[in-house]
Amino acid sequence: MSLYQAPLKDMQLLLERTLAKTGLLDLPALAEFDSELIGAVLEEAGKFANGELAPLNRVGDVEGCRFEEGRVITPSGWKEAYRRFCESGWLGLALPADFGGQSLPRFIAQPVNEMWLSANQAFIMFHALTQGAVDILLHLGSEAQKARYLEPLISGEWTVAMALTEPNAGSDLGALSTKAIPQDDGRYLIKGQKIFITYGEHDLTDNIIHLVLARTPDAPAGSRGISLFAVPKVRINDDGSLGEANDVLCTGIEHKTGLHGSPTCSISYGERDACYGELIGEENRGLAAMFILMNEARLSSGTQGIALAEVGYQRAREYALERIQGSDYLTGRQRVALVEHPDVARMLLSIRSEVMGLRSLSYLIAALIDKAEHGRDDAERTALQSRIALLTPVYKAFTTERGNLMTGTVIQIFGGMGYVEETGVAQLMRDARINTIYEGTTGIQARDLLFRKIQGDDGAALKSLLAEIDELSGTLKAETGPSGLGEALGQASAAVSAELSAILDRNRADPLQLNAGGVPFLEALGTLCCAWQLGDIALVAQAALAEGRDPDYHGNLQALAQFYYAHSVPRIDAHLAAFRQARAGIDRYRFTIHTN
Amino acid sequence: MSLYQAPLKDMQLLLERTLAKTGLLDLPALAEFDSELIGAVLEEAGKFANGELAPLNRVGDVEGCRFEEGRVITPSGWKEAYRRFCESGWLGLALPADFGGQSLPRFIAQPVNEMWLSANQAFIMFHALTQGAVDILLHLGSEAQKARYLEPLISGEWTVAMALTEPNAGSDLGALSTKAIPQDDGRYLIKGQKIFITYGEHDLTDNIIHLVLARTPDAPAGSRGISLFAVPKVRINDDGSLGEANDVLCTGIEHKTGLHGSPTCSISYGERDACYGELIGEENRGLAAMFILMNEARLSSGTQGIALAEVGYQRAREYALERIQGSDYLTGRQRVALVEHPDVARMLLSIRSEVMGLRSLSYLIAALIDKAEHGRDDAERTALQSRIALLTPVYKAFTTERGNLMTGTVIQIFGGMGYVEETGVAQLMRDARINTIYEGTTGIQARDLLFRKIQGDDGAALKSLLAEIDELSGTLKAETGPSGLGEALGQASAAVSAELSAILDRNRADPLQLNAGGVPFLEALGTLCCAWQLGDIALVAQAALAEGRDPDYHGNLQALAQFYYAHSVPRIDAHLAAFRQARAGIDRYRFTIHTN
Repeated sequence: MSLYQAPLKDMQLLLERTLAKTGLLDLPALAEFDSELIGAVLEEAGKFANGELAPLNRVGDVEGCRFEEGRVITPSGWKEAYRRFCESGWLGLALPADFGGQSLPRFIAQPVNEMWLSANQAFIMFHALTQGAVDILLHLGSEAQKARYLEPLISGEWTVAMALTEPNAGSDLGALSTKAIPQDDGRYLIKGQKIFITYGEHDLTDNIIHLVLARTPDAPAGSRGISLFAVPKVRINDDGSLGEANDVLCTGIEHKTGLHGSPTCSISYGERDACYGELIGEENRGLAAMFILMNEARLSSGTQGIALAEVGYQRAREYALERIQGSDYLTGRQRVALVEHPDVARMLLSIRSEVMGLRSLSYLIAALIDKAEHGRDDAERTALQSRIALLTPVYKAFTTERGNLMTGTVIQIFGGMGYVEETGVAQLMRDARINTIYEGTTGIQARDLLFRKIQGDDGAALKSLLAEIDELSGTLKAETGPSGLGEALGQASAAVSAELSAILDRNRADPLQLNAGGVPFLEALGTLCCAWQLGDIALVAQAALAEGRDPDYHGNLQALAQFYYAHSVPRIDAHLAAFRQARAGIDRYRFTIHTN
Repeated sequence: MSLYQAPLKDMQLLLERTLAKTGLLDLPALAEFDSELIGAVLEEAGKFANGELAPLNRVGDVEGCRFEEGRVITPSGWKEAYRRFCESGWLGLALPADFGGQSLPRFIAQPVNEMWLSANQAFIMFHALTQGAVDILLHLGSEAQKARYLEPLISGEWTVAMALTEPNAGSDLGALSTKAIPQDDGRYLIKGQKIFITYGEHDLTDNIIHLVLARTPDAPAGSRGISLFAVPKVRINDDGSLGEANDVLCTGIEHKTGLHGSPTCSISYGERDACYGELIGEENRGLAAMFILMNEARLSSGTQGIALAEVGYQRAREYALERIQGSDYLTGRQRVALVEHPDVARMLLSIRSEVMGLRSLSYLIAALIDKAEHGRDDAERTALQSRIALLTPVYKAFTTERGNLMTGTVIQIFGGMGYVEETGVAQLMRDARINTIYEGTTGIQARDLLFRKIQGDDGAALKSLLAEIDELSGTLKAETGPSGLGEALGQASAAVSAELSAILDRNRADPLQLNAGGVPFLEALGTLCCAWQLGDIALVAQAALAEGRDPDYHGNLQALAQFYYAHSVPRIDAHLAAFRQARAGIDRYRFTIHTN
């Protein structure tokens, strides 16, 4: 049984469609990235994911990381895979060529990232950290800081750790208490305890650059008094060589239910009062600095939902085609394959259709980011940024929530064998389970959506999105292909639109009441976005069918869209009903829990 | 933080209501079980669950069972807890007094079983096995067999293993190939390999009675050629004392993602051609014998969904009340408890409301079983049996599916801490994950529901259920209390009813097509049943409120009903839409998976 095969055919189709729709390759900066180049990158990445990373996924789960006297030992093979990953240029793929990267656009990095995550999420978690740190340094770092950090980070010589969370400051970073005391030489003495630091300590590289949120002595309380510091594990000499240890001590790693191969560290900074860091950006602007990487991190964790579902689907499909069990109702045939049972087919299609819709959404967002970066004028860039900002919390929360369900469905298809760890699919459920929590929980994404992204621009970005969905609905209605999709899409869009006034009229519903229905509203919008993408895929397939191209494949794409419209789109109304009714009851509900 | 407290107040309220509605205590055989006796049993069981079993739950998860040269060593404390459980009379609680049990009715055993499962599901799994074996022996055993087995089983001196599954015969038992060759002395020589045998080997008792499904030499193929045999691990002398070992060899245990404390064994029978068993019941009637315990097993695994969600709710509620994180949107207060965040309150209520509705359903089924056993006449008993038969697959599949979601929600409420194993709630998700698979997967329950339970009696049992739900809808509409519940319940019932003709008209939809929408239909009916019970609870609460009794508690019960009607009842229409539309697409979908 193959562990993972990059779904190149699906990816290529979706990429080509996304590029065609967004006109991305018409931009001068991106014109060189033709489909031949894209195809070559995807194929090589697929080989690396399947050949190098996937075989280590279960190794990482079984062995986990070991903690020994302040050191963290990664699972067997991790070090070699890390070295090859960096040497092959994958780490620097979308990082700036000025500092040793390859500056490939986001739309190519997106399918590649999905492959890494499908193959081995626990391993690859260093990747988004480096990406985020590079973004921060490019935006906020001094020239000296860029010179000091960027090349070693992009080459993979050093890695990055993000030290945000403290025991009493999780989702609420404003509560953190780590101190940063300015020294005469311009450095800061760092002192405090941080927890839940991914790759905060490991044996992959000689140095780790910790980006630490801390408070200077006179900083205001709350989130307006947080600054960002670069704190290397090993001090860096002026010539870039490594000096003495910097009083950064790993005090333990968590025993998590999944992602065993990714060390989640507790770190003590300055136990011996000898931990020094340098300020990145301005004092008290640390949280703003974090927002630079937050969107990146949210898109990356959203992709984890898709990636784990994809590899789970591949395993479940293979098993369902091979495993003989039970008889066929219709034909009376004895001993048929699992896939012949309609409910097994239903479960498989529920994963594949949703993965295709959400993957398509991920490509769209990636392409919008590229377009916003290279866009022709400010007005276009601003409009694109609004669309990206609106879709980010929906994408992050919805794909990860669905990822939890889809990886559970994979176990269900395997039956009793899925419950046995050796099969490897229970790991997918366990690995996935953090994705709805870190980088902002689903509840926090819903709050971001309702208040910042919808109320914040008086609904403009959402209205523009719904208008585009309505346009597709009209096109689908006019098509002779798959029937009913256009009508269903239009109704769903109208149903979401009908709730807009309640969100925007601040006199009608107070924030607490709105917030109580935030997640159901986000789920409605997420389902609508997935339907939107699948409706569009059905159109693309229709065009290919009209030309007689690859009729099985394109017919199947239409079937995926029809499946999603049959099974999932009806949930939109249910989510919206919950959104409406949740608002009325929230005071009562909190009282109910208090008095139980 | 308390590990578990039996929810005595909720349980007592639901029990009293169930008894009042079913008129159970009016039956002469049950009149002695007054609320004082019930209260005493529940209180003692709660103490045992909390004091003895709950502390061992995480021990079992962390240590797991060890396999050493054919022996299985259970986790620390397991043996002592087993001894105390049996000595305190809990094992025999609902087993016949003629053989050492206490013959308590089912309706008392149900809440007690829920407590054991909340406290330590992995530990208590021997319980349902003994219960099932006793049922089989009472129905099918000869007098000699009853005399040989029942007392040692009911006292806990011996345990039971059910040896059904084989590597190529999982859900499809008709495919099994273990042989049973008759000997001159009336015994059978057993030879074959079985897997996935819960408590198939352990160190709790000196003997284990394996109930083994096997084929005699001339048996017909498939499920009509299966016979049931009692195969003791250690042979039993005529005086009941233990003799020699019986060539029953445990060859390994599974490494499961959850239920680590419950050994899941592979057993080889007759490796040395010296494994003897005796036939239970008639030859080739083994599968029918299994059906005696199947309903029992399905109700028990259904309760696992409720039990794990209940203990998860308790832990999450306590955490949400204590953990300070974030600020309050409405008041601007800094540093509020998690529970003040509307989305956290929403998640907590989603669990509590569903647990109450499903627990109520479990009590109803238990009471119906008692009533059917002690009922006044055949007609009443037959009607009750039909109702039980209809509700069993719905209860089993729906509560376990929801249990997966609810234990996931518990982790979500805990945030990052929920992902850390020491917190103990990730274990609930891992333990729960098998419940939708064993004792018949959700897909198999849906098939049972559509074909046996609905088509099988031309919809009579379902129509009778819907009529009763409509009656409650009418009563709710006439009440002055919680508004809108009666209307919503009536609409939901009508929506389910509207699908009946499609199920019953065998010319309209072939079985494969119906089957493709089976799970969505089951989910619609499960949601309706939960709403039905919560609607009734709201009425009971309304009556108490009218009398001024315990207004906080009864007001909260009404809030639970309102929450469920707001958040979950709207899903019924979505499930039914999927049911309708799944039928049309199934041929296409299977093709899609094949050609991917």
